[in-house]
Amino acid sequence: MEKHIVLLPGDGIGPEVTKAARQVLQAVADRYQHTFTFESHDIGGSAIEQHGTPLPEDTVQAAKKADAIFLGAVGGPKWDQLPGHMRPEKGLLGIRKQLGLFANLRPVQAFQQLLHASPLKKEVVQGSDLLIVRELTGGLYFGQPSERRNNGQEVVDTLAYERHEIERIVDQAFQSARVRRKHLTSVDKANVLESSRMWREIVEEKKADYPDVTVEHMLVDAAAMKLVTNPSSFDVIVTENMFGDILSDEASVLTGSLGMLPSASLNEKSVGLYEPVHGSAPDIAGQNKANPVASILSTAMMLKHSFGMEEEAEQVEAAVAGVLQEGYHTADIDLKNGVKVSGSELAAKIVDQI
Amino acid sequence: MEKHIVLLPGDGIGPEVTKAARQVLQAVADRYQHTFTFESHDIGGSAIEQHGTPLPEDTVQAAKKADAIFLGAVGGPKWDQLPGHMRPEKGLLGIRKQLGLFANLRPVQAFQQLLHASPLKKEVVQGSDLLIVRELTGGLYFGQPSERRNNGQEVVDTLAYERHEIERIVDQAFQSARVRRKHLTSVDKANVLESSRMWREIVEEKKADYPDVTVEHMLVDAAAMKLVTNPSSFDVIVTENMFGDILSDEASVLTGSLGMLPSASLNEKSVGLYEPVHGSAPDIAGQNKANPVASILSTAMMLKHSFGMEEEAEQVEAAVAGVLQEGYHTADIDLKNGVKVSGSELAAKIVDQI
Ligand SMILES: CC(C)[C@H](C(=O)O)[C@@H](O)C(=O)O
Ligand SMILES: CC(C)[C@H](C(=O)O)[C@@H](O)C(=O)O
Repeated sequence: MEKHIVLLPGDGIGPEVTKAARQVLQAVADRYQHTFTFESHDIGGSAIEQHGTPLPEDTVQAAKKADAIFLGAVGGPKWDQLPGHMRPEKGLLGIRKQLGLFANLRPVQAFQQLLHASPLKKEVVQGSDLLIVRELTGGLYFGQPSERRNNGQEVVDTLAYERHEIERIVDQAFQSARVRRKHLTSVDKANVLESSRMWREIVEEKKADYPDVTVEHMLVDAAAMKLVTNPSSFDVIVTENMFGDILSDEASVLTGSLGMLPSASLNEKSVGLYEPVHGSAPDIAGQNKANPVASILSTAMMLKHSFGMEEEAEQVEAAVAGVLQEGYHTADIDLKNGVKVSGSELAAKIVDQI
Repeated sequence: MEKHIVLLPGDGIGPEVTKAARQVLQAVADRYQHTFTFESHDIGGSAIEQHGTPLPEDTVQAAKKADAIFLGAVGGPKWDQLPGHMRPEKGLLGIRKQLGLFANLRPVQAFQQLLHASPLKKEVVQGSDLLIVRELTGGLYFGQPSERRNNGQEVVDTLAYERHEIERIVDQAFQSARVRRKHLTSVDKANVLESSRMWREIVEEKKADYPDVTVEHMLVDAAAMKLVTNPSSFDVIVTENMFGDILSDEASVLTGSLGMLPSASLNEKSVGLYEPVHGSAPDIAGQNKANPVASILSTAMMLKHSFGMEEEAEQVEAAVAGVLQEGYHTADIDLKNGVKVSGSELAAKIVDQI
């Protein structure tokens, strides 16, 4: 198959991990006789430097034509003092909205070899394998009005949803649950928010279409507790944009492997933006220390969700597992009897196994 | 001193733990020659049963005249299917709003004897001692509009603040930090929300009035991570109503002692509502199993914050620590070489030490 991939390296360690992602995709293309073409564009802080805006029109146009997009990371202290619309993060929010990337999928898995690095006790975190499906283009992060009023004496933000926006993310979550352990936890604050009551109703309506999936409703405060006390009890979690932001970051530190966690953001045509969950880590940028695994596992998600290449995706996952098994790791991780290597060395070892 | 206390036992285990709280307050009055008078009123599910509303006018009037209020717990599956305005939780939200209880203080401490019950590794949670100051009468939980629109096709909730509402909670948090370890973490989502940008500005303005307190800003997603990975790095956290709901519940399970955690909700005149952090636990209600410690420590907060009785408060805390030291505990907790007793027995032992 022929696929066109837009790379958005971004800031900090973004370019390093993007390079690793590209190498892995190229290796997959070689082995499975696909043709992947690549095109790089600016986003975030580096786009501010080059073009005076975090999301150049060029980047948007290229992304709209791509079969899939890979993003490294955006942001850094250098741009933290800029006004809201000129922040690197605006680039990310902008591209999500412009491409309609409403479904953010964030799997969290406990890697047996890394459990010792978890803040949780082994018996608590062991066996955890969950997927957070976060609504990504609506809710509190995009609702209007979002403004000062009355001469700066008041401020409002708005949590707004249209029915179809909730329906499509709930469908996505049910479909994800179906190919996993068939349990869906819908997280809301239905005892307080009207939007949560509508969310809950829609989940109840949709249930009938997925009789093989069991459904549970959980309040967001209870979910924040249970992620810590019993993470392995979850399969798929679906929730509003901001609840999802908080819960998915909370979940990302449970297994001691933040440097290993991928993500996918999909639109209705399954064009997706794939990015590691970790940030731009400006403190280690340019030192070839960054862990490329999160990015490489993000390419596996790309192969699966945007290209329908199940076998190729599994091959990438197996290569990562194999290299971990052999004890290779970057400096962010501490493996018993492991061999510490640089980011590019680790990527090369994974490429070798493909 | 003479003080008048309104008791709101509420639902589930609420009445049992309220009884323990009252006994402790009476013991304090006896020992320190105060006169505490008590008056009980209905709230939540039990008020729905008795009066057809979760917050009878009677209860509000009594609470308004009290020097302090103690609340047991509200809610239960029995009332979960009722429409929004008839839910037990409405009673709690209503009384917060009617009394202007804008400042919710939730201390979380690691009890050395209970660390083994924490989901976190001992070395991670050890030494944790933090206070979450949650804004309680504004933000996303109270903003208007909160409604369906366009024939049920759309829904909105509103996160709204007036400047003075943010100022007073930030002042409260600085004052709390001042009598603790003098470090304040203000949590927001300033890279996305306008209300968070205003919140951050106000914290920056107020800083000058508290030169002895160091201030740090943290994004809510980062805070959700750091609570798990490094809880002992926090002193005081101040944040918006809903962020505070999520983070304080997340924090409450870190130390393995949810049954031990008190809370206070204060208004501008320091009249306060004091309640255990745990819920109504309908599954064990009426069995004399409920742990009274969270409620008893809530009375210590009452003595301190509403009555200015520092010494009395410390006496209550010392009594709790003493009884724990002797190994007595309720069934929710598992102490090495401990002696399991009923809720009322544990309360009696604490009363004895006052
Ligand atoms: C950078 C920021 C706007 C973004 C978000 O909150 O959506 C990030 O935290 C994420 O979770 O992808
Ligand atoms: C019962 C509910 C409305 C309440 C809240 O979210 O404020 C509770 O969860 C709390 O934290 O006190």
